[in-house]
Amino acid sequence: MDSQTDSSTSLWLGAPLEQLPTPALTLDQVKMRRNAERMQERCRSLGVRLRPHVKTHKTLEGAELATGGTRRGIVVSTLAEARFFAAGGFDDILYAYPLPASRLEECATLAQRLQAFQVLLDNPQTLDLLRQRPLSGGKRWLVWLKLDCGNGRAGVRPTDPNTFALARAIAEETPEKVTLVGVYAHCGNTYSCRDVPTIQAIARATTAAVLDFVTTLRQAGVPCPQATIGSTPSCSHPVPEMAQLTELHPGNYIFYDLQQTQVGSCQPEEVAIRVLTRVIGHYPHRNQLLVDCGWAALSLHGQNQGPMGCATIEGYPQLRLVGLTQEHGQLEAVDGQIDFGRFPLGTILALIPYHACATAAMHPVYYVHAEGKVVELWHPVRGW
Amino acid sequence: MDSQTDSSTSLWLGAPLEQLPTPALTLDQVKMRRNAERMQERCRSLGVRLRPHVKTHKTLEGAELATGGTRRGIVVSTLAEARFFAAGGFDDILYAYPLPASRLEECATLAQRLQAFQVLLDNPQTLDLLRQRPLSGGKRWLVWLKLDCGNGRAGVRPTDPNTFALARAIAEETPEKVTLVGVYAHCGNTYSCRDVPTIQAIARATTAAVLDFVTTLRQAGVPCPQATIGSTPSCSHPVPEMAQLTELHPGNYIFYDLQQTQVGSCQPEEVAIRVLTRVIGHYPHRNQLLVDCGWAALSLHGQNQGPMGCATIEGYPQLRLVGLTQEHGQLEAVDGQIDFGRFPLGTILALIPYHACATAAMHPVYYVHAEGKVVELWHPVRGW
Repeated sequence: MDSQTDSSTSLWLGAPLEQLPTPALTLDQVKMRRNAERMQERCRSLGVRLRPHVKTHKTLEGAELATGGTRRGIVVSTLAEARFFAAGGFDDILYAYPLPASRLEECATLAQRLQAFQVLLDNPQTLDLLRQRPLSGGKRWLVWLKLDCGNGRAGVRPTDPNTFALARAIAEETPEKVTLVGVYAHCGNTYSCRDVPTIQAIARATTAAVLDFVTTLRQAGVPCPQATIGSTPSCSHPVPEMAQLTELHPGNYIFYDLQQTQVGSCQPEEVAIRVLTRVIGHYPHRNQLLVDCGWAALSLHGQNQGPMGCATIEGYPQLRLVGLTQEHGQLEAVDGQIDFGRFPLGTILALIPYHACATAAMHPVYYVHAEGKVVELWHPVRGW
Repeated sequence: MDSQTDSSTSLWLGAPLEQLPTPALTLDQVKMRRNAERMQERCRSLGVRLRPHVKTHKTLEGAELATGGTRRGIVVSTLAEARFFAAGGFDDILYAYPLPASRLEECATLAQRLQAFQVLLDNPQTLDLLRQRPLSGGKRWLVWLKLDCGNGRAGVRPTDPNTFALARAIAEETPEKVTLVGVYAHCGNTYSCRDVPTIQAIARATTAAVLDFVTTLRQAGVPCPQATIGSTPSCSHPVPEMAQLTELHPGNYIFYDLQQTQVGSCQPEEVAIRVLTRVIGHYPHRNQLLVDCGWAALSLHGQNQGPMGCATIEGYPQLRLVGLTQEHGQLEAVDGQIDFGRFPLGTILALIPYHACATAAMHPVYYVHAEGKVVELWHPVRGW
């Protein structure tokens, strides 16, 4: 390997952004810190705990920032993340994914090792598995019940009578082996919103569904200490009712992205993520610029209305992305002729990606910058 | 890290496929070898050299297979690939990407080190850069001129008078510094085809455009030893005229995929790539199964007609993918009710992905299998 150019080395620390090899995923440190602090402040105001989801960035540094330096209380969506963050000193990790039977031993290892490795389920078969594989040393499985409050992905519906029976079974049937920690709902349906009032209507409905269920449990004498909902749109504009929850678990907000701007979660100036790219070709006969960022560096998320949905070009609303292949992006003028003299070969452009989670997944390193220079290199975990 | 479960270890060598952690990218060794041999045989029959593109798999093992064990003559699309394959013993590498000025020193390092590190350009500014940065020790820049024969991405049009002037300048102006190796065209426009005759019509037109240009050069006394075209569709069904080229450079064919099947490049039984996934949830009230494969393991390529375009489910034409989030996939019945008893939690399903290049980019390890067991682990290079 050529260490001079390997992007995983620390060579780039201190470098001006315009010297980075492209495509490069960059993160604005000031914006990320502000996004993290604002979410912490929202949760403080509500009196609920922030348990940030780490699936967007998958980095120790991002999770440290999101937890305000405590390294406690995170949500992960893969066991690769769980192992990575456990090794990095995080000891309160909620694996908020329907626990797969084939991964039970890995979960048991983490549960034995960590102070609080917590799992999630939405069916009685998985509860049986946990009972058949008890933890040792006085440990019990810490279980969250996943509720589907209208999102329509994983989870049981709080209005289904079997759901009450499942919660009671988790809480009461084998208390020496299993504990019901709480109920968990993801309001991913907020992503279809286009303004704050509709986001808040979903947040309010999800919160009410979760709290009604917890109330029913408590009235029946079933202990259910915790209740959490999450999604960056709902947690960016919380409703007062969310103060009755115990935790919130948004994740994307540290970066935000074009989609969050369109949904109404944030203002364009809050988006911390960019993909830097350089102009590598001029094609006046078809009025196009070529740049060195394809789907391999951006993903195809947002392409439902064509490639122009995948990213906007910062500072150049007159340009739009019209083509993405593996390592090439094609830019056109929205209107009229491109002034090629304004974009000599080598010109650096900053793309604002549609979906930060998907774009981040394409990069082995993120360049964190402040005052125009690289101040940190973040290396995400991958795989499962 | 928990070495028992880290997918990058060799623990999984010899394991039956059904024991792999999911999602898992699997490659059928017999099919890959057959795909590689058939392409080698096609090129032998035509009398042209096969210079396989490695961007689909990005692995030493894949390139070894594609080069028939010679480890010579490959195409790469990033400098990370170039460095990786150079370190792996490949000494004839064509970096078939418009050479970015900012990466000139990296290219010079590779050109000095390798027997034949070859670059590509499509504009006179880049030629000037090469002249201003001559190689030492008797080496010259080995340059391919990129032609655009209807694909409409990078390249100069062979019918443009400036293209002839550029080729002549590469070949003749500073022969002590720069050599014109040949002309290179990518017929990516074959991806819009849906049958072999239309693929072959494009292959024929591209070949004719390239050969006409080379003939014009030679008639003017400009040496242009090589001529190459590529794309898996065209090279899977070569036309006789392609025998007049010197090289072909397809890449995807080692894996093939759903897209190549739809285009007409291959038969479904030739596709070597799968993503294994497990059923993790039953939702009878909405007639859906949940599986542990989301876009993080599959990509969103093929979603233009919705998520069902991203993959088919092998052996289950009655099921289709209707939703993909980061780590979840939702399956529905094409028609009628799902028989949930046939798909207990933990059931393994094999997804056939739409775009192998994009799916492979999501995985840190590929599990190569034969006779139902893992026989090799391949680790791709990433980044730029």
